[in-house]
Amino acid sequence: MMREATVGANHNALAVRRVGIDTYRENVAYLHRDCAIYRAEGFQALSKIEVVSLDQHLIATVNVVDDDAIVAPGELGLSEQAFAQLGASAGVMVKVAHAGRALSMNAVRRKIAGARLTAQDYKNIVGDIAGNRYTKTEIAAFVVATAQNELDREEVFYLTEAMVGSGDRISWREPLVADKHCIGGIPGNRTSMLVVPIVAAHGMLMPKTSSRAITSPAGTADTMEVFCDVDISIDRLQEIVQAQRGCLAWGGKAQLSPADDILISVERPLGIDSRGQMVASILSKKLAAGATHLLVDIPIGPSAKVRHMADAQSLRKIFEYVGDRVGLQIEIIITDGRQPIGRGIGPVLEARDVMMVLQNDPLAPIDLRQKALRLAGRILEFDPDIRGGQGYAIARDILDSGRALNKMNLIIDAQGRHKNPPMLGERAFDVPSPATGIVIAIDNLQLARIAHYAGAPMEKGAGVDLFKKLGDAVNEGESLFRVYSRYPAEQNFAHELCNDQSGFTIGSAELIPKAFVDS
Amino acid sequence: MMREATVGANHNALAVRRVGIDTYRENVAYLHRDCAIYRAEGFQALSKIEVVSLDQHLIATVNVVDDDAIVAPGELGLSEQAFAQLGASAGVMVKVAHAGRALSMNAVRRKIAGARLTAQDYKNIVGDIAGNRYTKTEIAAFVVATAQNELDREEVFYLTEAMVGSGDRISWREPLVADKHCIGGIPGNRTSMLVVPIVAAHGMLMPKTSSRAITSPAGTADTMEVFCDVDISIDRLQEIVQAQRGCLAWGGKAQLSPADDILISVERPLGIDSRGQMVASILSKKLAAGATHLLVDIPIGPSAKVRHMADAQSLRKIFEYVGDRVGLQIEIIITDGRQPIGRGIGPVLEARDVMMVLQNDPLAPIDLRQKALRLAGRILEFDPDIRGGQGYAIARDILDSGRALNKMNLIIDAQGRHKNPPMLGERAFDVPSPATGIVIAIDNLQLARIAHYAGAPMEKGAGVDLFKKLGDAVNEGESLFRVYSRYPAEQNFAHELCNDQSGFTIGSAELIPKAFVDS
Repeated sequence: MMREATVGANHNALAVRRVGIDTYRENVAYLHRDCAIYRAEGFQALSKIEVVSLDQHLIATVNVVDDDAIVAPGELGLSEQAFAQLGASAGVMVKVAHAGRALSMNAVRRKIAGARLTAQDYKNIVGDIAGNRYTKTEIAAFVVATAQNELDREEVFYLTEAMVGSGDRISWREPLVADKHCIGGIPGNRTSMLVVPIVAAHGMLMPKTSSRAITSPAGTADTMEVFCDVDISIDRLQEIVQAQRGCLAWGGKAQLSPADDILISVERPLGIDSRGQMVASILSKKLAAGATHLLVDIPIGPSAKVRHMADAQSLRKIFEYVGDRVGLQIEIIITDGRQPIGRGIGPVLEARDVMMVLQNDPLAPIDLRQKALRLAGRILEFDPDIRGGQGYAIARDILDSGRALNKMNLIIDAQGRHKNPPMLGERAFDVPSPATGIVIAIDNLQLARIAHYAGAPMEKGAGVDLFKKLGDAVNEGESLFRVYSRYPAEQNFAHELCNDQSGFTIGSAELIPKAFVDS
Repeated sequence: MMREATVGANHNALAVRRVGIDTYRENVAYLHRDCAIYRAEGFQALSKIEVVSLDQHLIATVNVVDDDAIVAPGELGLSEQAFAQLGASAGVMVKVAHAGRALSMNAVRRKIAGARLTAQDYKNIVGDIAGNRYTKTEIAAFVVATAQNELDREEVFYLTEAMVGSGDRISWREPLVADKHCIGGIPGNRTSMLVVPIVAAHGMLMPKTSSRAITSPAGTADTMEVFCDVDISIDRLQEIVQAQRGCLAWGGKAQLSPADDILISVERPLGIDSRGQMVASILSKKLAAGATHLLVDIPIGPSAKVRHMADAQSLRKIFEYVGDRVGLQIEIIITDGRQPIGRGIGPVLEARDVMMVLQNDPLAPIDLRQKALRLAGRILEFDPDIRGGQGYAIARDILDSGRALNKMNLIIDAQGRHKNPPMLGERAFDVPSPATGIVIAIDNLQLARIAHYAGAPMEKGAGVDLFKKLGDAVNEGESLFRVYSRYPAEQNFAHELCNDQSGFTIGSAELIPKAFVDS
C-alpha cells in the first residue's frame, strides 16, 4: 500500500559541529532554518530532538540558526556541553530523530495533580534527568511539583535512593567514614577546612568532597583551591586518603548523584529549596561519596535558611528518618546562624581565617574556632571509644598542639600545593556605618551577594572582610567592612549594591535577636 | 570612606551584536568568556542580566561564548528576538546590569506554598511575564504552581483581567461583536471558516482573529492562509470588517494578551493545560480582540482534551463565572469530539474540505457541515431578533443559497487573494488497515501528530486525508488514510510514526463509544 516505500538511507544525517556556546547543563542543538530536517520539527525553536551517533545518543533542545557562520544547513551544531556529552569529533555524521516527551513526565504530571509517587516513579524521573532527557522547563516542573505538594518522608527516601542510583558510588572499605554538611546560607562558614584536619589527625577517616559555590561567594572547594589542587581523580584521592586519613577535594570529578547537580542548577535560580529536595540532595551526595556517619549542621537565624527552632526540628526528623532508611548514621547539630562566621567572605579571605585558626593566631576569629571545635568534637564522638562529651576537648587538644595545622599542610602537599597562591583583589573600598550605635543585625544573604558581585568565587581574591560583628559598637562613618575586587566592573557592581543596602543594621543592644543554639 | 570612589563611566558598556539564533520567546544574551563584565556574573551561564540602551531595556539569560566569531569580548550578542526587542542597531553601545529576580516571583513562591493570590499579584506576575522579565524556568514554575493548586474562579478572573491588561485591546464600536472558540484538540475542526462567512452574510459583526498552530497540524490562520493573506494590520482589518462584517486573520500582529502567548509557549511543550489557565487564556484573547458575545465549543471524546461530561460541565461553570465578571456574554456548546472533523488534516486539505462545504458539493464532509451550521445557528441567536431555535435554519439557508460562499470570496479578496495557492505535497503514502472490521476509534492526538510530522502546518500541502471514519467498515489492507509530505525527511518521520501506531482501532460495531453531545 506504500506509494513510496523507499526513503533514502541517509535522509536525516547531519555533520556534527561544535558551537562555542556554553549552555550550562542544558543540551542545545543548533539547526539552520533552511535545513530540510529542521522543517519536519515544525516552525519553532524549543523542540526536543534526539541526536544519535554510532555509540551515543543525547537529547537536546533546538535553537534555530539564520547564520551560516554558526551552523550551515547540512550541519548539526552542538553547544559545548552537548558536544562533550556526545563524545564524537566534529564532522562525524549523526542522525536526528524526534524526541518524544520523556515517559516519566507522566509521573511528574501525576505529582502536579497531587498524587504520591512510587519508588519506581522516582527512579524513572531521576534516570531521565541524569540522562539529560528533561528540558530545563521540565526540570522546573518537577522541582515545583515536589516543592508544592510537599514530599512525604517515604518519597524523600525514594528520591534519595534514586539519586544515589543515578551515578557512581565510592567505597572506602572501612566501617567508619565520617562526613559533615551544613545546609548552607551562612557566609564565611568554612568549618570543614578545620574539622577535616582535626578529625584526620585523630585517625578517623574523613574524605571530604565538596561542591564549588553555585550562587554563594565561596564553597569549600573554592577556598581549598587557594592552597592546592582540588580537582583530583578518584584513584589519586584514594591514595591521598589512605596516607592522610582525610582530604578536601572537589566532588565534581566523580559522578556522585549527577541528577542532583542538574536539579540544583534549576532550583537555585528559582530560589526554590524545599525540605524534601534538600534532604534528598544532601544525603544522596554523601551516600555516593561513601560516608557512613554524617554530622548535619542546621544554622538558625533571621537571614539563614532555617529561621525558627520548630522548622529546624521538623527538618531534623526528615534527615533522621531517611538516614535510618538508607543506613547512614546521622547526627544533627543546630547552630547560631544570625550572622556570617569568621571575618572573611570569599576564597582568599576565608582561607586566611582558616589558617589563622590552625596557627592558633591570637587574632583568629573566635567564632570560627569555636564552631569548628564543636563540630569536630561531635564527629570524634562517632568513635565508639570516645565518651559522649569528650570530643570537644580532644578536638581542642589536636588544634592547640599544632597537629591540625600539620595535618592540613600534609593534605595540601598531597593534593598539590600551589606555589603562587592567589592574592587579595587590588581594588578595595570601605563601607561606612550610617550611624553610631550597636550592630544588631547582619544580613547573611546581602553580605553573600555583595561578595558575589565583587567577583567571588571566580576571582579568588574578591570578597568582603568584616570589621564589625553582632554586638559590636560602631561610630557613624566608621568602616563596617571592606570589599575587595579585581576588575572595575565588579567593583562597581558591588559598590552599587552596598549603596543600596549594606546588610548591616545599627541600633541599640537590646534589639539583638537571641541565638537559638542547642545546648 | 571610599578608597576608590571613581569608577570609569563606561566601565560596563558593550557593543550590541545581532546573533542569528532564534531562541523563541526567550531572550538570550551571548557574552564572551573573557569579557570583563561577564566575570562579575559568576562562573556560570544562566545568569539573568538587564540590557539597557538609550531608550529600551530588556532582561536576558546569559549564554557564555568561547568563539570570537560568534561574539567578541567587548560585544554583547543578542538572539534574534532579543535584538528585535531592544530595537537598537548593531554596534550601539549598551550597558549591562545584574537583573535581580523579578519581584513578583515572591508571589509565585507563595502560590507554590499554597496561598491564594490577589488581583494585584496577578497583575504584577503577568506584567513581568509580558515584559520578558521571567526566564523560561520561572514561567514553568508559575505554570506548574497554578496548575497544581488549582486556581479558584476568583483567581481565574484576576488572571484573565491581568492578561487583557498586558496588551492592546481592539474596539469595534458596535454593541454586538460575535466570536467563537473551540478549546481544541480535534484535528480538521475548521468550523470558523464556515461560521464567519455565514454569520457575516447575515450582517452580524464577526471579526475573527486566530492563532497559528503551535503543536497542532493547522490553526485557522494557517488554513485561511492557503487562500489569502492573514498577516494584516489592525487598521486594514478595521476597513475590511467595516465592509464585509467579518474577517479571518492572524491575531499575532496585534499585541492581544501577549503574556498569554508566552505562557502557552511553555505550557504546550510541558503538556500542562490546567482549566484555570485555559479559561484565562481564551477569555483574555477574546476580550482583547474586542468580542462582546462568545460561543465556546467543548468537544468530548476519549482522545479529546475533555473526556467526560462532568468535566465539561465544571469547565463550563468557570467560563460562565469569569465571563459574567468581565462582561462577556458566553454560550457553551458541548460537541462530539470522538474523532477528527471533516476528512483533511493540514492546511491545504482542510481548506479543500471548507470549500467543498461552502460550494454545497455533494461529496463535502457532512460532519463538518453539520457542526458549522450548529455553531453558526447558536451565534446567530445572539441577535435579539432571532427566536431561540431558529438560528440553525437561518444558517442553513445562508449556506445552501451560496451567500456564505459569496461572502467568503469577498473576505478572501479583501484580505488579498493568493494567485498561486499552495498545492498538496507531492509525496504520499497510504496506511492500510491491519484487519477487516469496523473503525471503532480514531485517536485525535495520534492523527494530529502524524500530520505534524509529515510537515504541517509549515508545509501547507502536508497532512493526512482520512478515507474512513468511525463506524465505517474496512477490509484488511484497505487504505485508512493517506499522508502527504513535501520532503523525504518529513515523509520518513511520518512513516515511522504510522508504523508505530496508526491511530485507528478496528473492531466490532458495538464497541464504538457513545457520543456525549448535548441535545
